Amino acid sequence: MSEPSSSNSETSDEIIVISRRAAPGEVDEAYETAVKNLDKFMSAAFVQAEEALDHSEVPVGCVFVHDGDIIGSGRNNVNESRDPTLHAEIVAITEIMNHCQTHDLDPAKIFAESTLYVNLEPCMMCASALQQLKIPRIFFGAVNDRFGGIFSVGNVFDYESDPPKMDIVRGFMGGKAVELLQRFYQNSNMRAPPEKRVVKVQNRETK
Amino acid sequence: MSEPSSSNSETSDEIIVISRRAAPGEVDEAYETAVKNLDKFMSAAFVQAEEALDHSEVPVGCVFVHDGDIIGSGRNNVNESRDPTLHAEIVAITEIMNHCQTHDLDPAKIFAESTLYVNLEPCMMCASALQQLKIPRIFFGAVNDRFGGIFSVGNVFDYESDPPKMDIVRGFMGGKAVELLQRFYQNSNMRAPPEKRVVKVQNRETK
Repeated sequence: MSEPSSSNSETSDEIIVISRRAAPGEVDEAYETAVKNLDKFMSAAFVQAEEALDHSEVPVGCVFVHDGDIIGSGRNNVNESRDPTLHAEIVAITEIMNHCQTHDLDPAKIFAESTLYVNLEPCMMCASALQQLKIPRIFFGAVNDRFGGIFSVGNVFDYESDPPKMDIVRGFMGGKAVELLQRFYQNSNMRAPPEKRVVKVQNRETK
Repeated sequence: MSEPSSSNSETSDEIIVISRRAAPGEVDEAYETAVKNLDKFMSAAFVQAEEALDHSEVPVGCVFVHDGDIIGSGRNNVNESRDPTLHAEIVAITEIMNHCQTHDLDPAKIFAESTLYVNLEPCMMCASALQQLKIPRIFFGAVNDRFGGIFSVGNVFDYESDPPKMDIVRGFMGGKAVELLQRFYQNSNMRAPPEKRVVKVQNRETK
C-alpha cells in the first residue's frame, strides 16, 4: 500500500494556511467556527487514527463536520479489508453517502457545507474525491510528501481547469500525526529485514 | 460533476502506446492477449457506457478482465446516486472487492493480474485508485483533457516516488467515445440556457 512519509516532522506543528476562499478582511463565519473547533475535531480524527494503529493500519483518521456535528468519520482500513483504496476519507465519505440516502438528504449540499479534519494530508485519490465533492474546508495535520495530493506530490488546484475554491490549513497537531506514523513504522520494522530496520532507525535519529 | 471534454476527437482513433512494462523485444503474453481482445472487451465497456447514457449519465463504462473473463464492470452512476465519486471504475472496483470477499480471493493478487478497458481516460481519483491497486494494463478510448489523470491533466507516474509499472494504451474506439460524449452534451444542452447551447453547437461545427 501507499506508505506516507514522516520525514517532515520538523515543520509539522507550524500552522500554515495554504488556501483561503474569502478575500482578505472578509468575514467567513463557517471558516472562523471551523478554526475555533480545530482542537475538538482534530482530536476526534486522532481517535480514529489511533484505532487504525491499534488494528495495524497506517494511522490515518478523519471526521467530516456539518453544522457543528460530526456526520461521518473513518480510519484507514486498507490491510484488514485488503482494499488499498479504503483510506480514512473514503470510509467516511461512504458512511455519509449511506446516511444521506437513508435520510433522503442531498449529499451534494451536505458535502458542500462540511469541513474535513484529517491528521495526514490526503493522497491524490482522496484529494480528487474531496474536490469532486466540493468540500469547502480541509484541515490536515502532517504533510505527506510521498503521496500527498493537496499540495505535496499533486496540487488539488491543478486537477481541473476550473477547480472549486477551498480553505486548506495544515500543521495543527502535525507533530502528533508524525509521532503516530513513527510508532506504526517502528512496529512494522520489527517484521522487516534487519538491514531495513537499521536504515529506519538511522533516519529517525538524524531528525 | 466533472464533465469530460470531447475537444480532441480529431486524434481519438489513433492508437498510441503511452507506457510499456516490457522491454523492447521482450514477449509479454498477458499484454499480447489483452491487445488481441481489445475489440471484444472495449465493446463490453461501451455497453456499460451506453447504459450510462440511457440513464442520463456522462457515458463512461469499463470492464476489468482477469484470465480472459470479465470479473467486474461499471458505468458512471454520479447523477442517479447523487455521489460525484461513483465513476465507472469505482463502481467496478467495488463490485470486484465484494466478489473477492464473498469468494475469499485476495484482491491484491486479482487486481495485479487484471486489465482495465474503459472508453474514457480515467480522472485523477480513479487513476490514483488504479495505481494503488497496481493494475498492470489499462486501455482507454478517448483522452480526457479536462480531467484525465493518466497523462492529460495529471500523470499517473508522478503520483508517488516509486510508481508501479503499467501498460497504458489509448485511442482504440476513441472516436466512438467522443461521439457518445457529444450525444450526452447535445441532450444536456437542451436543458441549458440558449446562449450556452449556441456555443456548444458552434464548437461541434468547427471540429
